[in-house]
Amino acid sequence: MKAAGPIELGEGKSSAPRAGVNRGMAILDFILRILAFIGTLASAISMATTNETLPFFTQFIRFRAEYNDLPTFTFFVVANGVVSAYLLFSLPFSIFNIVRSKAQNIRILLIILDTAMLGLLTAGASAAAAIVYLAHRGNVRTNWFAICQQYNSFCERISGSLIGSFIGVVLLMLLILLSAVALSRHK
Amino acid sequence: MKAAGPIELGEGKSSAPRAGVNRGMAILDFILRILAFIGTLASAISMATTNETLPFFTQFIRFRAEYNDLPTFTFFVVANGVVSAYLLFSLPFSIFNIVRSKAQNIRILLIILDTAMLGLLTAGASAAAAIVYLAHRGNVRTNWFAICQQYNSFCERISGSLIGSFIGVVLLMLLILLSAVALSRHK
Repeated sequence: MKAAGPIELGEGKSSAPRAGVNRGMAILDFILRILAFIGTLASAISMATTNETLPFFTQFIRFRAEYNDLPTFTFFVVANGVVSAYLLFSLPFSIFNIVRSKAQNIRILLIILDTAMLGLLTAGASAAAAIVYLAHRGNVRTNWFAICQQYNSFCERISGSLIGSFIGVVLLMLLILLSAVALSRHK
Repeated sequence: MKAAGPIELGEGKSSAPRAGVNRGMAILDFILRILAFIGTLASAISMATTNETLPFFTQFIRFRAEYNDLPTFTFFVVANGVVSAYLLFSLPFSIFNIVRSKAQNIRILLIILDTAMLGLLTAGASAAAAIVYLAHRGNVRTNWFAICQQYNSFCERISGSLIGSFIGVVLLMLLILLSAVALSRHK
């Protein structure tokens, strides 16, 4: 369980370059986690703070759109919040992998949790995307009208907040693949 | 690269039991793939064949509901079709893993493709679930009415067809975890 030396030393036949590559992958893992954390957190905040009040109102109704008018958007905010919290708490484990590149059990734990979080985040993002699509285009056959004609800036914000979430999905996929490759290199 | 012997022989210190467990995991991988294939195929067929024509009509409109009235359901059928086709084509590789339990590159290839398919299937299933929820409950704030009061059997069919897809999601997650554990055991 010796610490990985820098590549230049080249002690042993091939263990030092291998340890160098492993450490590089662990650092990449750490960076991807930070990026995914930023993306999902930005998505959650951006969706949760979106609301629009139209400049006209009747005696009984004030026209106001908020994210929690639609349960799917609430789920989206919760999913992004949970995943970003998980990514934040996984950072220490990722650092541990950089320092001790032979710790296999932590990698397996991370790959299990990453896969679960990938499922949660993809579910939240694509459910919200389905509703955003409906808000933009409506549906003639079911008489669901596009609400984006009235709530213009609301629609732009909720569409934009999907981006960070989908970036998070791609980054989580990369994290899983990285962990798989790292696991296969430990012989 | 010797073939794995049966457990009872116990030659070497621990390689024979290890190979036995590895083969067991490879067989479990094969079974899970078949189950996931059946689930996603059933979902795709069940959604694609759903339609309902109401027993009344006006001069201009015939009330008929089909899955492709909603683009999200079309995406659901395509996603389930693609994933079930992938699972079918991955079966030979899974068999190869049973026969030769040391082939690491195939495992990494499968873990990459499994993760991508997990993303696609989760996206399709949860987007469709968001729309099914809307069809059942409607939404007062956006004036989207529940269509399930009219199209009753249509709604039951599309709700049921989600089940196979979500079972497929869970099985794909298990497949990824199984591959990760299998990769970590190769030393």
